[in-house]
Amino acid sequence: MDSEVLAQLTEILEEDQISTNDTILEHHSKDESYHAAHLPEVVLFPRSSEEVSRILALADRTKTPVTPFGLGSGLEGHVVPSSGGISIDFSEMTQIIEVREDDLVVRVQPGVTRSMLDNALKKYGLFFPVDPGADATIGGMTATNASGTTSLKYGVMKDQIRSLEVVTPQGEIIKTGSLALKSSSGYNLTDLYTGSEGTLGCITEITLSLYGVPENITAARATFPSINDAVDAVTSIVQAGVPAARMELVDEASIRQVNRLVETAYEENPTLFLEFHGNEAGLKQDVQFTKEILFDNHCTDVIFEKDNQARMKLWEGRHNLAYAYVHDYPGRSLMVTDVCVPISSLAEAIIFGREQLEENNLPGGIVGHVGDGNYHAFIMIDKTDEKEMQKADDFNQAIVEHALSRGGTCTGEHGVGIGKKKYLEAEHGAALGVMKTIKKALDPNNIMNPGKFIDIE
Amino acid sequence: MDSEVLAQLTEILEEDQISTNDTILEHHSKDESYHAAHLPEVVLFPRSSEEVSRILALADRTKTPVTPFGLGSGLEGHVVPSSGGISIDFSEMTQIIEVREDDLVVRVQPGVTRSMLDNALKKYGLFFPVDPGADATIGGMTATNASGTTSLKYGVMKDQIRSLEVVTPQGEIIKTGSLALKSSSGYNLTDLYTGSEGTLGCITEITLSLYGVPENITAARATFPSINDAVDAVTSIVQAGVPAARMELVDEASIRQVNRLVETAYEENPTLFLEFHGNEAGLKQDVQFTKEILFDNHCTDVIFEKDNQARMKLWEGRHNLAYAYVHDYPGRSLMVTDVCVPISSLAEAIIFGREQLEENNLPGGIVGHVGDGNYHAFIMIDKTDEKEMQKADDFNQAIVEHALSRGGTCTGEHGVGIGKKKYLEAEHGAALGVMKTIKKALDPNNIMNPGKFIDIE
Repeated sequence: MDSEVLAQLTEILEEDQISTNDTILEHHSKDESYHAAHLPEVVLFPRSSEEVSRILALADRTKTPVTPFGLGSGLEGHVVPSSGGISIDFSEMTQIIEVREDDLVVRVQPGVTRSMLDNALKKYGLFFPVDPGADATIGGMTATNASGTTSLKYGVMKDQIRSLEVVTPQGEIIKTGSLALKSSSGYNLTDLYTGSEGTLGCITEITLSLYGVPENITAARATFPSINDAVDAVTSIVQAGVPAARMELVDEASIRQVNRLVETAYEENPTLFLEFHGNEAGLKQDVQFTKEILFDNHCTDVIFEKDNQARMKLWEGRHNLAYAYVHDYPGRSLMVTDVCVPISSLAEAIIFGREQLEENNLPGGIVGHVGDGNYHAFIMIDKTDEKEMQKADDFNQAIVEHALSRGGTCTGEHGVGIGKKKYLEAEHGAALGVMKTIKKALDPNNIMNPGKFIDIE
Repeated sequence: MDSEVLAQLTEILEEDQISTNDTILEHHSKDESYHAAHLPEVVLFPRSSEEVSRILALADRTKTPVTPFGLGSGLEGHVVPSSGGISIDFSEMTQIIEVREDDLVVRVQPGVTRSMLDNALKKYGLFFPVDPGADATIGGMTATNASGTTSLKYGVMKDQIRSLEVVTPQGEIIKTGSLALKSSSGYNLTDLYTGSEGTLGCITEITLSLYGVPENITAARATFPSINDAVDAVTSIVQAGVPAARMELVDEASIRQVNRLVETAYEENPTLFLEFHGNEAGLKQDVQFTKEILFDNHCTDVIFEKDNQARMKLWEGRHNLAYAYVHDYPGRSLMVTDVCVPISSLAEAIIFGREQLEENNLPGGIVGHVGDGNYHAFIMIDKTDEKEMQKADDFNQAIVEHALSRGGTCTGEHGVGIGKKKYLEAEHGAALGVMKTIKKALDPNNIMNPGKFIDIE
């Protein structure tokens, strides 16, 4: 990146919006995963879509790589500026632009975090359901099509997004979608940019659907003698059509982490964390039916957390599991697998993953949004130990290949980034060619997050 | 289209799969709307994706226009072969390939109709929820991102589609998506092809999500002194978060059509058709709460149709309304508006539409999937009367402009086709340029449904 580009940036941004400070560069070189860091040459902090537009136009003209950065809570290296160049940090674009209470809609800037949005919505009695665990930015969650524990009932990011403002690699500001709940008007650009991981432009505004806080919420913990029984119970609940809001599997190792982290004394056996949202009478009937299915599947104990604080604690434990593992293994790095399979293949997929974990003697545990067919193995790896790294990578590959052979996907919610790039050919075949054609057409100079999931040569 | 192309087609297909018969050409020249017909030069009836692939490869090589045809039940002229060439009819591709009962998934060929699918699913206790009224093909419904009365609860076509097989304009057979319920793997091509109206390729296989037949269903008719009151009631129900499965507005004129069509004696006042799906206890509570909201909004009468046959009759009347209008106005053609607006603008949008209809003295009525913010004016026009055609077109334009000014869309579910093409610039602005770039990249010879919603020059 030549000094001419840096000089031109000073014509677009104030001095305090441009940083080449070592600590800042270092902070923008990595995410929370095991992926190798790479420094950007400069970090920019735009305050408006117009500034982003001028930055991208300059980058395109000078063929300078651009990597968008939310909070760095990703798990596949999306924000690592693999080719150097510019890291655009959205932490100065954190406005909640408009809450349309009557339309159950909110417009936000990309740097708004989940907790910022939660707090702003409280007074309206509304909430935004997608909870990927980390307190990620809405921009980052949009870029990876994130999901989480409540996606079973409410859907993933793409199901919530009505409209996006995107700055194209050429610096044009476009608006996709509309405020309407549905549309058949033209190509669905909203869903194309959602999950495109910063490879097609910068997302500068997101319009999201909101929901009324449920009238009643019931959470429960159900313990099982084996993971197999727990997964069978989940499969039966899904197939019976019980509208559960959350169904999370937490294995023994992970329950131990939860207990240490939030100081609970949950029984250390394979456990399902469940939650139901609805009206009082309907919920009672759903819970009763679910209980029957759980016990039919050898559940040994179900404890209902009616108290709001006990319920919050349960989900706090689940959401912070990744951090619990990281703290428990100082000096090691986190690798998280993320396959998603059709529900009928879930039990064998998890059993396979569990066996592979034990066979390879890798420290970690298994958790998952099992109602969706999505599960994660958290593995704590020593990045300096080449042999262990290879073992962990082989493990990840075995899990992905197993999922793909069952018609599943290599990533249910974390995205491709660096880590899953090598599996795209196997998953998408000739469709990957279509993706490349789109990338080439929309970003011919390949400035947007180059080296990440899609290569164009 | 030169005779050389016709000759080469005989190398791909059997004789009985190629037709230049006048009646057949005529049948493939139009849909159910007012749009001007245009004859194709040949109609092809492929029986496999491979045959479609060879047809498209030939068409691309010879720059021959191709227009896919499902059943011709569309309302915006999508299947009209405006540039002549080939019409591909999918009526020989009607296989229900696989019902994965445990995964709540079905794989079908594009020529399968809604009623064929319904019948095949009955024995599994499963159903497919999207019901656009017409007994359309799943291929056509995918191509237009169709929706219908139950989209309020279950979502639109794009929410049901897990995977597509698409033949690209170059004749390559690709698979998008997977069997998994969610994915963050690469660009979302599934949602790009869904709603692309045959302009990016031919859809040759669709994998859909299914649902268990609801344990309990309650339907109701609620009558109001005015449309305004009816719409206010809908808005309140949506904002209160009552999970209704269907909420349809039928105005006085349309209730008269329903009464004549299915021989009912419904009160001829603005009416809401409602339906709730769920467990018995929850449903009771939802219905009670809804009743209170209805009467708060001046509802004069609510009649619950508990009997299954009475319920079926109610929806039969609603679904066949377009046909009722067509039969009631022999010699006239159907124009249907299709805007969708944010729910807070719905009342004023419908009142505006109603006023415009009366002011212009156009025969017809208003109905709508009002829970989604989507409403239709059915207008019966005399295509030979230029003045009336102009009046109807002005009316459509006024409604669209009103909707766009409220952040809505020109088409909630019917698609763009020929009829809404002129509004895309106003709705999408610079984003239309991105759509054109994609079209140009994926179909550089512009063979797929040329002249329809997107032009590339």
